[in-house]
Amino acid sequence: MSFCDLAVSGVAELQPYVPGKPIEELQRQYGVRDVIKLASNENPLGPSKAALAAVALSSKEMTRYPDGNGYALKMALADKNQLAPEQITLGNGSNDVLELVARAFAGAGDEVVYSEHAFAVYPIVTKAIGATGVVAAAKDYGHDLAAILKAITSRTKIVFIANPNNPTGTWIAAAEIKAFLEKVPENVLVVLDEAYVEYLEQQENTIAWLQDFHNLIITRTFSKAYGLAGLRIGYAMSHPEVADLLNRVRQPFNANSLAQAAAVAALGDDNYLQQAREINAAGMKQLIAGFEKLALQYIPSKGNFITVNVHSNAAEVFDDLLYEGVIVRPVANYGLPQHLRVSIGLPAENERFLEALTKVLGRGE
Amino acid sequence: MSFCDLAVSGVAELQPYVPGKPIEELQRQYGVRDVIKLASNENPLGPSKAALAAVALSSKEMTRYPDGNGYALKMALADKNQLAPEQITLGNGSNDVLELVARAFAGAGDEVVYSEHAFAVYPIVTKAIGATGVVAAAKDYGHDLAAILKAITSRTKIVFIANPNNPTGTWIAAAEIKAFLEKVPENVLVVLDEAYVEYLEQQENTIAWLQDFHNLIITRTFSKAYGLAGLRIGYAMSHPEVADLLNRVRQPFNANSLAQAAAVAALGDDNYLQQAREINAAGMKQLIAGFEKLALQYIPSKGNFITVNVHSNAAEVFDDLLYEGVIVRPVANYGLPQHLRVSIGLPAENERFLEALTKVLGRGE
Repeated sequence: MSFCDLAVSGVAELQPYVPGKPIEELQRQYGVRDVIKLASNENPLGPSKAALAAVALSSKEMTRYPDGNGYALKMALADKNQLAPEQITLGNGSNDVLELVARAFAGAGDEVVYSEHAFAVYPIVTKAIGATGVVAAAKDYGHDLAAILKAITSRTKIVFIANPNNPTGTWIAAAEIKAFLEKVPENVLVVLDEAYVEYLEQQENTIAWLQDFHNLIITRTFSKAYGLAGLRIGYAMSHPEVADLLNRVRQPFNANSLAQAAAVAALGDDNYLQQAREINAAGMKQLIAGFEKLALQYIPSKGNFITVNVHSNAAEVFDDLLYEGVIVRPVANYGLPQHLRVSIGLPAENERFLEALTKVLGRGE
Repeated sequence: MSFCDLAVSGVAELQPYVPGKPIEELQRQYGVRDVIKLASNENPLGPSKAALAAVALSSKEMTRYPDGNGYALKMALADKNQLAPEQITLGNGSNDVLELVARAFAGAGDEVVYSEHAFAVYPIVTKAIGATGVVAAAKDYGHDLAAILKAITSRTKIVFIANPNNPTGTWIAAAEIKAFLEKVPENVLVVLDEAYVEYLEQQENTIAWLQDFHNLIITRTFSKAYGLAGLRIGYAMSHPEVADLLNRVRQPFNANSLAQAAAVAALGDDNYLQQAREINAAGMKQLIAGFEKLALQYIPSKGNFITVNVHSNAAEVFDDLLYEGVIVRPVANYGLPQHLRVSIGLPAENERFLEALTKVLGRGE
């Protein structure tokens, strides 16, 4: 007897998400020291002092269960985003809320639509519940909303849209998304995954759309610009009825207490966020200049990362970079076997990556 | 259109887990100060210094994603429990791994068996996946393994057994469980939930059973005796094939980095564990003596809590205790409307609870 035979449909053929290689693992496996990691779209600034102070304070009470209702964080989010706490669902990272949407609203026989080159978690959560993933072809590496609209059938329960998208960094203008929402049937849930929204130069008030589109779910995270990836905290904003259903499926203590406290502190730390945006904009320019010097094509990105075409087997380039102590992300599993995704680091990290890339590609003197 | 109609079978009728009331909430709602919480089976000692130091160190890297493979913690657990890291699945609390088992191995049309008065998460995870929960009648408030065996049919995929059980504190001897495992068909997974195992006076090596029973999954947590409830970290130990399937369904970063670091530290902190056991044994005696003085019946417990029959509507007694600033747990949702579950606190907390109970029951002079 194989346990795979006992597993529910979808689980056995599930390909787990491949995380960025942790620094410790590279040091262990390759014997490399002084490693830099530009692989997971993390905030290179290190933690904000406000978030660290909140963690230190909260840790004194860590024998206690978290507040399962997330009172303080929901109040802070409701205040900042001008909506009711009943519209919020907290998650163990936004991965958790993406999964909750799939589990609450789709199952075997249902279809879930997402774009080619879109975030890997969409197909994973779709397969895990035995639903059918429907992939809409991309346009210029980004979401083609017309193609997504065409992919919607009477069996479609959910559409996932990442804006900006990971790993391509592509971005759709607000007016286009709004026009798209007007055309989607009201019984199809649209998840607008805004994990990277804080990096956009122009902030659109997409949250205001929730009043008009009751089938809209907006997800956000504290893992990127807010710098709390290790703590795991994200959230969904939706119609209160949708939030009620997501909260029923949610594990009662899915958001740990240190993450809740740090997120409240992070929301109030505008300086850190501003600094994160500035270092990102400068680093993006630095990397683009480096790619142009190397005559490498890249996908213009609105996120805190950029995906570059290395014009050869990217898996080999990735591996050669590891030996230089530089971790980036191969994206062959996203249908991009010639590309590497590089997170924007500190200026010195970006410089070191560019030097390593130059060496590895044999473009040095 | 109601969004409930869009939700998958089971989700709409899901009754969410009711967490213990957080202290802040009681202070907000009842205007009570100086509150003690004996409601969530938390470790009353407060955090261990070793765990706090690990959190402080790990928080410096909290902009980084956690190690999705949990290398250090799995190595520490494998070493302590004498099994392979490939047999371990880490969870965001053991709630997470209980849910992973249900999601990986059961769905609509399948049956999941658990006992009357058993942990509330079993029916919740069963309903959330659209499976059918089958409740075996309890014997003396505890698990009746013969009744559970009889409840197994060809549709049974999973059996949940809590030992000791929450909220009753009842306990089954190792020999009985082993005899039970011999009789369970090998294609039925048996989850032995040992959240409270550290409080047993005599520690049985149930983990060694994994070699003989490939359908056995043992779950444990750091939320109780190890004092890390706020951080959310638990784990399952199983056959490696089962672990592989659970790890596929698992969210890649379900275990946050501070929890992983604190758990490693906690595993090495034998003094703290010993102190937790001692304060629990002493507190248990203290509460039992108080109940006997009040002529109240209680269910003998092997956990860090005790469930007492207040011989009246327990919901009212619970509420009256809140006004005295004492939070305990009503267990009507467990089919025990006359009982209250009380977590063992520090000696002064136990004393204050007994005084409040005496007053509320009108047994004072």
